[in-house]
Amino acid sequence: MGDQPTLAVVGATGAVGTVMCELLSSRRNVWGEIRVVASKRSVGRTLFVRGAELPVLELAPDVFDGVDVAMFDVPDEVSAEWAPIAVQHGAIAVDNSGAFRMDRDVPLVVPEINPEQVRNRPRGIIANANCTTLAMIVAIAPLHHEYGLKELVIASYQSVSGAGKAGVDALLDQLQRVAGDRTLGSRSGNVRQAIGDDLGPFPAPLALNVVPWAGSLRDAGWSSEELKVRNETRKILGLPDLKISATCVRVPVVTGHSVAVHAVFGTEVDCEDAREVLRHAPGVILVDEPQSGEFPMPIDAVGTDPAWVGRLRRSIDDPRALDFFVVGDNLRKGSALNTAQIAELVAAELTTRA
Amino acid sequence: MGDQPTLAVVGATGAVGTVMCELLSSRRNVWGEIRVVASKRSVGRTLFVRGAELPVLELAPDVFDGVDVAMFDVPDEVSAEWAPIAVQHGAIAVDNSGAFRMDRDVPLVVPEINPEQVRNRPRGIIANANCTTLAMIVAIAPLHHEYGLKELVIASYQSVSGAGKAGVDALLDQLQRVAGDRTLGSRSGNVRQAIGDDLGPFPAPLALNVVPWAGSLRDAGWSSEELKVRNETRKILGLPDLKISATCVRVPVVTGHSVAVHAVFGTEVDCEDAREVLRHAPGVILVDEPQSGEFPMPIDAVGTDPAWVGRLRRSIDDPRALDFFVVGDNLRKGSALNTAQIAELVAAELTTRA
Repeated sequence: MGDQPTLAVVGATGAVGTVMCELLSSRRNVWGEIRVVASKRSVGRTLFVRGAELPVLELAPDVFDGVDVAMFDVPDEVSAEWAPIAVQHGAIAVDNSGAFRMDRDVPLVVPEINPEQVRNRPRGIIANANCTTLAMIVAIAPLHHEYGLKELVIASYQSVSGAGKAGVDALLDQLQRVAGDRTLGSRSGNVRQAIGDDLGPFPAPLALNVVPWAGSLRDAGWSSEELKVRNETRKILGLPDLKISATCVRVPVVTGHSVAVHAVFGTEVDCEDAREVLRHAPGVILVDEPQSGEFPMPIDAVGTDPAWVGRLRRSIDDPRALDFFVVGDNLRKGSALNTAQIAELVAAELTTRA
Repeated sequence: MGDQPTLAVVGATGAVGTVMCELLSSRRNVWGEIRVVASKRSVGRTLFVRGAELPVLELAPDVFDGVDVAMFDVPDEVSAEWAPIAVQHGAIAVDNSGAFRMDRDVPLVVPEINPEQVRNRPRGIIANANCTTLAMIVAIAPLHHEYGLKELVIASYQSVSGAGKAGVDALLDQLQRVAGDRTLGSRSGNVRQAIGDDLGPFPAPLALNVVPWAGSLRDAGWSSEELKVRNETRKILGLPDLKISATCVRVPVVTGHSVAVHAVFGTEVDCEDAREVLRHAPGVILVDEPQSGEFPMPIDAVGTDPAWVGRLRRSIDDPRALDFFVVGDNLRKGSALNTAQIAELVAAELTTRA
């Protein structure tokens, strides 16, 4: 290979892939050749990356010839099939799907938290976490290191772009249908009537509503999204016995996942100390001046890299517990950015080794 | 007094007052004369109650002459001044503000839970709870009676009508300003720019956003709304040592407060047993078939009386904990309906006594 490693971006035309191309154009350039790859129906399109117009290549085995790092943002079943093919062709795969996250031989990496895990990849695959987990984990990890995390109770406020471009289109279409009718939302069913059956990827209308469901049904009433948050948080923090209850809820926000966190620690916490920990935590910005209207919100956090943390309070009835609110851009840190950061760790390793 | 007691509705022209007039027209009629009362600026208007057109009376001491029950839905400071005046004039006051809720000599009544408290009113005043507390409490109380409640962690998804008509107008105006622009919500600050400075009663835009703030700042970073939920829940359930952490968040929904609840009990819970408890609980409707898209949502619960409960799961890591999602109409059970129910208990008492 040349001085700088070759990168393939698989799923480059999707909602996350689009942000990935922007990040590759704006972050420090560590890549040699970049190839953008998508399904057959996107072939013929071009994408701008680092100021150059790149043709979209069709996903096929030989697209990985000479590739050092392949980033995947595609559905689980596509990753399950194609990440191993990329590895067979000599690439290291960084996968943003759920296909490999809980595989014991695949590390689940958040560069601010467990960067050393990136080298522990017997299958040649490194996994990126779920967007809801990533929205909160960079704020939780430094508090865990300070106080020893025992339990998490979280409730999410997840944006529609977590369900891709189809999710964004569904919400924006619905908003156009309800805007201007000042009776909607004040009588049972009238929002459903106005919106009709075209719900996009969601089980219910999102405009003027919140939908306590994300993902698919798993055992005992839990959603797949809620189990991901539990299992991935445990794996990233290296806490296999951490108690976690999550309720995942979709809200009418375009981009930016918010999470209300109740974190119980092994020792008493001091709120001002905790603020100091967060002020110095990588990937975190503390926004906590409620008296002047400053708290983390999706309309501010969207398009930015860090986790925005605020509303920090020590629980009144438990001196070992902290309550706070955290917002992260689900397309950036929640997926494309964390994937890019992992890939950059691999690039640094390959460049050093070369 | 005649056969049926005389009722005054103070604050009859507001968002809650409007629902109150609807309820008085649709519920079993237990009232003799009804007077609708508001501030001076509403005098000259008329309101329809029980099919009759009633002139709005100006709030003044003599408006309470001959009144048996006076329901107040006005700001705290107006209630603080005027509820005692109504009592001096011989009325029993049922107050929906925060002015008296934590007064030891004022019962805080939810008729499904503690109806006997309605007679324990040394000041002649009975308080109605906060809308967020009321959204969840009728679901929590029967589970407490079955399993013994020890701790609550809750996160709310509160609608804009909790801030009155001004809140509803603000959201609907904002939606008209953002609808049709498909770039909004995808870049930091562009929703703020589109909406401008006219935020209504909120500290930030609500369209395409969630705002982790309701009420005013209290000690140690807690909002008044979060403290109300804690203190009122303890008082209604008669559990002065109950551990509660609440995070209150405003969402772009017109009417219907949702709450994600994590409830820890003294004994192990069985999810199917808990469902059975909720099926038989007064004021509760169980909506818990996620496989067919049935879970509680504001667009369905709005305009209805019960608390809609669903997404019931036993915590994976704590057999004594239940997670669930509950939605109630904040203008009905959350304020006007519960006030009407309390007033009806008083009416029954007066009618029996007469």
